[in-house]
Amino acid sequence: MLLVADNLQIIYKNIEEAIKTLDPKPIQDLVKECEAAGAEAIDINSGPLSHDPAKKMAFLVEAIQAVSDLPVLLDTSNPKAIEAGLQANKKQAIINGFSLEPAKRDAILPLARKYETDIIGYLLSANGHVPSNEAERLHVAIELYKAFQQAGIDNQHLIIDPVVVPVMWHNGTEQAIEILSAVRNLPEVLGFAVRTIAALSNLTTGKGPLGAKLLLEKAYLPMLASSGLSMVLLNIFHHETVNIAKTCKLLTTPNIFTWEELT
Amino acid sequence: MLLVADNLQIIYKNIEEAIKTLDPKPIQDLVKECEAAGAEAIDINSGPLSHDPAKKMAFLVEAIQAVSDLPVLLDTSNPKAIEAGLQANKKQAIINGFSLEPAKRDAILPLARKYETDIIGYLLSANGHVPSNEAERLHVAIELYKAFQQAGIDNQHLIIDPVVVPVMWHNGTEQAIEILSAVRNLPEVLGFAVRTIAALSNLTTGKGPLGAKLLLEKAYLPMLASSGLSMVLLNIFHHETVNIAKTCKLLTTPNIFTWEELT
Repeated sequence: MLLVADNLQIIYKNIEEAIKTLDPKPIQDLVKECEAAGAEAIDINSGPLSHDPAKKMAFLVEAIQAVSDLPVLLDTSNPKAIEAGLQANKKQAIINGFSLEPAKRDAILPLARKYETDIIGYLLSANGHVPSNEAERLHVAIELYKAFQQAGIDNQHLIIDPVVVPVMWHNGTEQAIEILSAVRNLPEVLGFAVRTIAALSNLTTGKGPLGAKLLLEKAYLPMLASSGLSMVLLNIFHHETVNIAKTCKLLTTPNIFTWEELT
Repeated sequence: MLLVADNLQIIYKNIEEAIKTLDPKPIQDLVKECEAAGAEAIDINSGPLSHDPAKKMAFLVEAIQAVSDLPVLLDTSNPKAIEAGLQANKKQAIINGFSLEPAKRDAILPLARKYETDIIGYLLSANGHVPSNEAERLHVAIELYKAFQQAGIDNQHLIIDPVVVPVMWHNGTEQAIEILSAVRNLPEVLGFAVRTIAALSNLTTGKGPLGAKLLLEKAYLPMLASSGLSMVLLNIFHHETVNIAKTCKLLTTPNIFTWEELT
């Protein structure tokens, strides 16, 4: 299970300012901190970048890759920004992502073929709604895979995001459990060892006490890991959650156990 | 998922002394502390009680039930001690437990019928060996269930323990993952909603740093919970693990989530 830092987000004032002024330093400092904290990939959550998207995403990818070899996830709904990121990319970039929503399917999915890169597909219906249970998620996954195949991309490039919803939703805990089952069953349903990714922070979106949010993260992450999740998007500065994640990796990877790996 | 305290063990000097002198106070103090810490049942790990087993187990059950309404698990290989515990029991007692080992199958299993009580069955082979993978565990489970049925006991009284092994064993991490799958598949294999129990502390048996042991507990417990485990035997004074356990219960129980339940 690969740990992807979700800490680089335009919603943070200093990041917004750095992008606006094309100042690489705050971006690079953050990325180095993420890597030191255990990040194995960096999600670039730039938002839609409505003004000058290509220039800004290229700046972000170059800034990060000047100080880090980690894969970057191009996390925006703007196809121009994604393509600029892919052109700027000198290491590994992953498109994050597409869905059955026509605008994303038609404008973003083809970029994965053009640049021969991994792409994340969200289990959302064509109108952008979150499926309400596992059966609906698997149905969407089959449709998503059809679109993916029609775009002529190799299976190995697909990563599916089952879309974790806030536990505060009226059916939040049930959805959390349905997602575990969907993650476990996706490879069998699609007929190959499809990779999966989940955004852990989504579970605790909204107002709530930090201690309770961290407990939810620490309890849900091992459930995702034992369901076979390939990548997890999380706040890499939540050190206890990251320690749990590392322990999950130890437990779910065939190996001879030694205490040193946990100390 | 019911939390069963594994803290009442004869290996602790004060408990050994209390049993020897039939002094209820240390036992009762411990049980009250366990209940305050979140215990929903108490495992009475008395060892074989080779000297005066009936008197000692009756004393233990009476001492505990004088101060607590929690179910007690009669955790000994001595059938005389178990029967004395069942006779002394005024609330709920669970036999812990039997296996395919002939001595246990023949002397302990019939007590569950005689006293119409729940009984835990260990997934161990007839010679007491731990199965090496899920397939062997499920095979043992079928044999165990046959013996259980032949004893004429209702399905609802069976609780299966898949036998967690130390992660330090050469195949310890693989066994941990095989057990998750066995717990998930047991109801389908046996054809009814059989309950399951696992001893979490077994995972970290042996020497090792406490911090790493707690991480392993906190990572493995949610995996067990999401596999459908019914009861977990754990050190109820490991508060962080207990908080994770409570969070798992919230996540795996259909309910409307509120933060208050975690604070």
